[in-house]
Amino acid sequence: MIKLVLIGSGNVAQHLISSFVGSKDIDLVQVFSRQKEAVSTLFDSNKITNNFTDLVVADLYILAVSDDSIAEVSSQLSFENRLVVHTAGSVSMDFLDQKNRRGVFYPLQTFSKNRTVDFSAIPICLETEFDADFEILEKVAKALSNQVFKINETQRQSLHVSAVFANNFVNHLYQISNAICAENNIPFEVLKPLILETANKVMTLSPSEAQTGPAIRNDIKTIERHLSFLTNENQVKIYKILTQSILQNGTKL
Amino acid sequence: MIKLVLIGSGNVAQHLISSFVGSKDIDLVQVFSRQKEAVSTLFDSNKITNNFTDLVVADLYILAVSDDSIAEVSSQLSFENRLVVHTAGSVSMDFLDQKNRRGVFYPLQTFSKNRTVDFSAIPICLETEFDADFEILEKVAKALSNQVFKINETQRQSLHVSAVFANNFVNHLYQISNAICAENNIPFEVLKPLILETANKVMTLSPSEAQTGPAIRNDIKTIERHLSFLTNENQVKIYKILTQSILQNGTKL
Repeated sequence: MIKLVLIGSGNVAQHLISSFVGSKDIDLVQVFSRQKEAVSTLFDSNKITNNFTDLVVADLYILAVSDDSIAEVSSQLSFENRLVVHTAGSVSMDFLDQKNRRGVFYPLQTFSKNRTVDFSAIPICLETEFDADFEILEKVAKALSNQVFKINETQRQSLHVSAVFANNFVNHLYQISNAICAENNIPFEVLKPLILETANKVMTLSPSEAQTGPAIRNDIKTIERHLSFLTNENQVKIYKILTQSILQNGTKL
Repeated sequence: MIKLVLIGSGNVAQHLISSFVGSKDIDLVQVFSRQKEAVSTLFDSNKITNNFTDLVVADLYILAVSDDSIAEVSSQLSFENRLVVHTAGSVSMDFLDQKNRRGVFYPLQTFSKNRTVDFSAIPICLETEFDADFEILEKVAKALSNQVFKINETQRQSLHVSAVFANNFVNHLYQISNAICAENNIPFEVLKPLILETANKVMTLSPSEAQTGPAIRNDIKTIERHLSFLTNENQVKIYKILTQSILQNGTKL
């Protein structure tokens, strides 16, 4: 059984703890959390520490901490030559202190508190400093997910940027959409089937095949009607730039 | 049984025909299609006409034609004082010829060829010129969908604009996301779980509760890393404007 220590107590850490606790292939031997209470409902509190010098020996240490803390936390580890990985999409492996063997364990998903996620459907992207370490990291990832990928730093960076478009920006468009409806006393409920179908469509069609609407039809009259309908300057700006982008790149991006 | 004639042969018309054919409450008595072959696999070809003068008597005529054809097609109808509705989100009821009783039957969804849709989950938004006509239109809508709404022209217009954000623009962001991945030899498959979860999240959380990512965290370092990673000028422009909008409106749109 692979012995694992998890360091962190934020959203990603908590989702990982819950999933590793339920895994029969991984022995989560310890969790490090500055505030023990943050994770005490998820894990045996006798095995939670807030002291770096108490960290036990393990095959793998996963640092699920904020991007900015990776360098500092990894430098505080009091051991050497063990396998230590972070979970960040946009941070180089090199930010980890080089006294240990380094790697990345990046689960590509959006994690929110109070929302359970099914790790089996989450792609986990792996990178290791030394080839010999890849196998163990892969075993740990496969204990959680059916989709495990070996990707290098540039690929991971591109994935992180892509995810900003496919998640952060998409969610912001939902928010604008909701705001426009709310101003006209229409409940967000009305938009939900459209939002789901929009996502489901690209499970089988490519995004360019799935594109519909006035911009891809070059329907200038409807675009102008929409622009004169919108009163919020920010919404007008976003409408214009995305319409322009569809007009120009709709079928060839 | 309500007698219905459907006029049109495009995506929306085809999806409506398939659904009405399967409905036990509606009698689809005739379909008008300029080219009979376009709909002959969906409907009894003896009941398809391409001649306006052959249109039979019915309780309701649904014009599922392109926005630009609504006025012309409705003026070609050779009868008067019958209930005639169009299916367009952004076109006023007034574009229908006033010799008939007018209305709107707007199904809020994205329709693509070769993709079946489940009308029972599609909101249908109704408007009628005369109150007395609402009941029949509502019956027809309820024969297809569990979500039927009475909305006025301004509300429908706002819904149509909202749908451009929640569908057309969202899908375009999927396309950009896919393009960034493809350039780095990452299959679009990797992004699919994130896309689905992004949509599923707002089924239970509001979009502002669901927002994650560098912009909402005010994580300028990551934003700058992303901007220096992107090489496509159009992608940079879209990244900047949406990041700016989240920074400014992320929690209060």
